[in-house]
Amino acid sequence: MARTSDAKERLLASALTLVSERSYAGVGVQQLCEHAGIKKGSFYYFFKSKQDLMLAALAQQSQVIEQMIFTPALAADLSPLERIERLFHLTYEFQKPMTQETGRVLGCFFGNLALELSTQDEPIRHCIDRVFRAAVASIRNTVEEAIKAGEVPEVDAQATAEAILAYWEGVILLAKVRNEAELLKKLAGGVKEIAIAGKKKTNP
Amino acid sequence: MARTSDAKERLLASALTLVSERSYAGVGVQQLCEHAGIKKGSFYYFFKSKQDLMLAALAQQSQVIEQMIFTPALAADLSPLERIERLFHLTYEFQKPMTQETGRVLGCFFGNLALELSTQDEPIRHCIDRVFRAAVASIRNTVEEAIKAGEVPEVDAQATAEAILAYWEGVILLAKVRNEAELLKKLAGGVKEIAIAGKKKTNP
Repeated sequence: MARTSDAKERLLASALTLVSERSYAGVGVQQLCEHAGIKKGSFYYFFKSKQDLMLAALAQQSQVIEQMIFTPALAADLSPLERIERLFHLTYEFQKPMTQETGRVLGCFFGNLALELSTQDEPIRHCIDRVFRAAVASIRNTVEEAIKAGEVPEVDAQATAEAILAYWEGVILLAKVRNEAELLKKLAGGVKEIAIAGKKKTNP
Repeated sequence: MARTSDAKERLLASALTLVSERSYAGVGVQQLCEHAGIKKGSFYYFFKSKQDLMLAALAQQSQVIEQMIFTPALAADLSPLERIERLFHLTYEFQKPMTQETGRVLGCFFGNLALELSTQDEPIRHCIDRVFRAAVASIRNTVEEAIKAGEVPEVDAQATAEAILAYWEGVILLAKVRNEAELLKKLAGGVKEIAIAGKKKTNP
């Protein structure tokens, strides 16, 4: 049994691991407790429900994705467009060890839960919507820098950032269906073209 | 109770409806039978398992998507690029009545199941992979026509078609998370730019 002080963190880690490898419905509180090495009574000390744990796991994972992918990808050492393309390469690097360990492209924790639960669980859908809107805001800043730098024309930065996030999620989805993480590298270049195009204000 | 002659079709329709509105794990054989108005014993006359029913529902729905979206979208009355953009507008038209009826953007039946089940169910993952490869082949033909027509440069038609399918799935995913079908119209234009760009063979 884990020390109580670790219990909450262990449950969050188990939620991320088991739900990524299976699905939300595919994992019960009992299995989460067994994986975390925690008694079922302790679970309800920390979390009201599986949904409550999942909302906490989503919040924690959004920080991980921010630190591991978005912050380094969008850092100013490359041109704005190259930073956006780097999102895909760092996503590949992020997926690769999990793929090697499990034999499966596990995909995006947010995208997976979004498609499984959006019609069934409003709090989780809202949580994922907020994470995606924050991601769009980060990408939008970079698109605006690309416009200032003259790297792309006067595009609608908001719609372009939404299109880039959609493309990112779509490529991860396709990589998961094919169980082929390399697709993230193969299709990375396509994102620059979405950025260049967007809705050209100057050439509608 | 439905006539036996209708039972199989009713089960397929119930699988599509209930799994779209909830998820694969969120629906059991008992609920499928109740929704279809069929005795549980009859279920196993037609299908070995819920997975077996789902594989049949995926095959049937792939024909529906072909007839309702891909065939009319890619028909030759528009230029190749405009046909590809029409994929998004017809997807919006396809989602709209379901959204109005349920209050929910239900999303893509294939994408939903892909993210819920790809790590857990190889026969279903393979089935969706085959459907997606067929969709890529249709799009690829249109990309090749666009190249011949001089509408796009000498792109890598296969990678471009994969990128277009990924973008399509990603836009549907984002529309489902936001519960906002109109996003399909808003982001439709972005797909032309992926087609124009691809991996330019002439300008790598």
